[in-house]
Amino acid sequence: MEAFSDGVFAIAITLLVLEISVPEDALENLWRGIADQWPSYLAYVTSFLTIGGLWIVHHGIFRRLRHATLALVRLNLVLLMVVSFLPFPTRLVADAIDATSAERAAVIFYGATLFAISFMITLIARYVARRGDLLHDSVDLAEVRAAAARVSPNLVFYALVLLFALVAPLVAAFGFFALSLTAVIPRRLERLGRPA
Amino acid sequence: MEAFSDGVFAIAITLLVLEISVPEDALENLWRGIADQWPSYLAYVTSFLTIGGLWIVHHGIFRRLRHATLALVRLNLVLLMVVSFLPFPTRLVADAIDATSAERAAVIFYGATLFAISFMITLIARYVARRGDLLHDSVDLAEVRAAAARVSPNLVFYALVLLFALVAPLVAAFGFFALSLTAVIPRRLERLGRPA
Amino acid sequence: MEAFSDGVFAIAITLLVLEISVPEDALENLWRGIADQWPSYLAYVTSFLTIGGLWIVHHGIFRRLRHATLALVRLNLVLLMVVSFLPFPTRLVADAIDATSAERAAVIFYGATLFAISFMITLIARYVARRGDLLHDSVDLAEVRAAAARVSPNLVFYALVLLFALVAPLVAAFGFFALSLTAVIPRRLERLGRPA
Amino acid sequence: MEAFSDGVFAIAITLLVLEISVPEDALENLWRGIADQWPSYLAYVTSFLTIGGLWIVHHGIFRRLRHATLALVRLNLVLLMVVSFLPFPTRLVADAIDATSAERAAVIFYGATLFAISFMITLIARYVARRGDLLHDSVDLAEVRAAAARVSPNLVFYALVLLFALVAPLVAAFGFFALSLTAVIPRRLERLGRPA
Repeated sequence: MEAFSDGVFAIAITLLVLEISVPEDALENLWRGIADQWPSYLAYVTSFLTIGGLWIVHHGIFRRLRHATLALVRLNLVLLMVVSFLPFPTRLVADAIDATSAERAAVIFYGATLFAISFMITLIARYVARRGDLLHDSVDLAEVRAAAARVSPNLVFYALVLLFALVAPLVAAFGFFALSLTAVIPRRLERLGRPA
Repeated sequence: MEAFSDGVFAIAITLLVLEISVPEDALENLWRGIADQWPSYLAYVTSFLTIGGLWIVHHGIFRRLRHATLALVRLNLVLLMVVSFLPFPTRLVADAIDATSAERAAVIFYGATLFAISFMITLIARYVARRGDLLHDSVDLAEVRAAAARVSPNLVFYALVLLFALVAPLVAAFGFFALSLTAVIPRRLERLGRPA
Repeated sequence: MEAFSDGVFAIAITLLVLEISVPEDALENLWRGIADQWPSYLAYVTSFLTIGGLWIVHHGIFRRLRHATLALVRLNLVLLMVVSFLPFPTRLVADAIDATSAERAAVIFYGATLFAISFMITLIARYVARRGDLLHDSVDLAEVRAAAARVSPNLVFYALVLLFALVAPLVAAFGFFALSLTAVIPRRLERLGRPA
Repeated sequence: MEAFSDGVFAIAITLLVLEISVPEDALENLWRGIADQWPSYLAYVTSFLTIGGLWIVHHGIFRRLRHATLALVRLNLVLLMVVSFLPFPTRLVADAIDATSAERAAVIFYGATLFAISFMITLIARYVARRGDLLHDSVDLAEVRAAAARVSPNLVFYALVLLFALVAPLVAAFGFFALSLTAVIPRRLERLGRPA
């Protein structure tokens, strides 16, 4: 199951670049055309690091499992379905920033997708933390429980930035960017994320 | 062979999102534009869960094999060819729903592809159920036979919904959606689908 | 190296479907629109089975290797480069069949790419057949040599159909289709292609 | 981590072909249309071999590691982010060569991305060379240090060609092509690149 999930993460993360393009007529003044695409870069980096951070947490959970229940396989399939969907709202946000009438809807739609991803990984982490019988013999259940508890705050942060998008969508877009950075940077993920 | 198949499933499942887009002029009223894409979401979820459910069954079969015959490799290659083809009818169905003149043709074409996928996995399950010599020593042939017998009803369901598409294509589209849900949800797949 | 190659094969094979589309105005008469795409299906199946057959042979070679030389890694990288390129001439051939002025050029360009793929895998098979020191201890060098000898005729067949494309490109397109079928079907690949 | 990275490399390398296309009206004179796409082929081969060469070096480093620190996972994630980004400047360069007003900007932007890739792999090679505790017991630290030292000159070459792009962008584009060839060809990579 992990190889399949890794495949989906790797592909979703790599498809993001297809959303970036410079309009034909920008070839006249290409530096300007490249610079004008900044919302695309912001959306690319945010989505890339969000999936990348998710992969670190996901790998940290699944490499500790000896086997999986069908319920876990299904939770994971729903997670993958939302992750695979992310390139679509990413493109919307890249197109809609600076187009004031659409900006709010696009950022809320994007944020709701990020929230759904965070919700699914939290659900998975909690499910695994309750099922000591699924773990490899060498794995300490207390450690997995602590790791699962550490994942959940993200859900609150995503909800807060999502609410904030109602009033200031552009600021919220940078908020999601900041959250994607924290998913990769903070110390507290270290124990969970240490790869095999 | 399983790694290669998993790769194809993971890519086909992730490419589905490329079919979803909001027309340029919908940026004026983006919530409306997003809502108008509901046939795309229906087609995305149906195809995603169909391939996801297929992956569970496929993995349940192939991880029990010690080695494969060339005949099995070829059956598998034809299965992969039909699965890889699915994004095309998925896009057709997403475009044609609500465009009444094309709806029937698109849903029948889509359903025929789903039927072909179901047909190929049924063929593979039956082939493996007849070849006890291909299995790992620890695997019980009776268990594989029971699992293979459980896969086949789907074929009948797909045929029925496909026939129904002749009279009511939109209802049939929701029928395929319902079938994709049952492929992921029902209890009876549990034994076959339990991953390693 | 095999996992990386398998990834490239799986992606190239799955990207082929992106080349198939029905023009917007065909929604009026969708059955006709779907039928008119027959050159796309022909090109899709030919390219899919060619890469699929190549994967069987490639896997048959590389799973017998204990380690690889840098020269082999480079030969393999050139093979992957040509395989990854195949979706482009595939699309050309799908667009150009039935458009008489372009048909010959498209089929020759497509056939030349298939010939290059066949050339590279022949080169790799012969290289491995000369290097008994690269094989797993359990592998018989004579068996690998016989397998390598069996791969090479394909090269001649591709050259012949390619020459034939100069006079009758449409017939040659069906010739490449027939060759892709033989790569999957014939008995003589059985020993080489038997997967682990 | 290596499977995930290999997945991203394999996908990025295979997506490059999607950037190549022949304009509709070129079907009139397809040989001419195919020939006119030479900047696309140049950009395709350069990017393909650059990622391919990177994969050889990356695999040479990561297969020697017993486990990874979170810092290394993050460095690797940034490397993957830049590699995944490469198809975008590749397309720009393919579009802009021969369109004199945009050529300089496109080649500089492309070269800067190649420089960033070279910078990240150099950083990773040096990090690993300093951390003998991460290596497999059978691996000699001196060998890894020597390998890391051999990677770094590339960085200087990329910087030089990038500077040269300010005055002669077209020549610089061929310079990046030449560098991509040396990444695959030279003897000195042999020890690092020897795959398992």
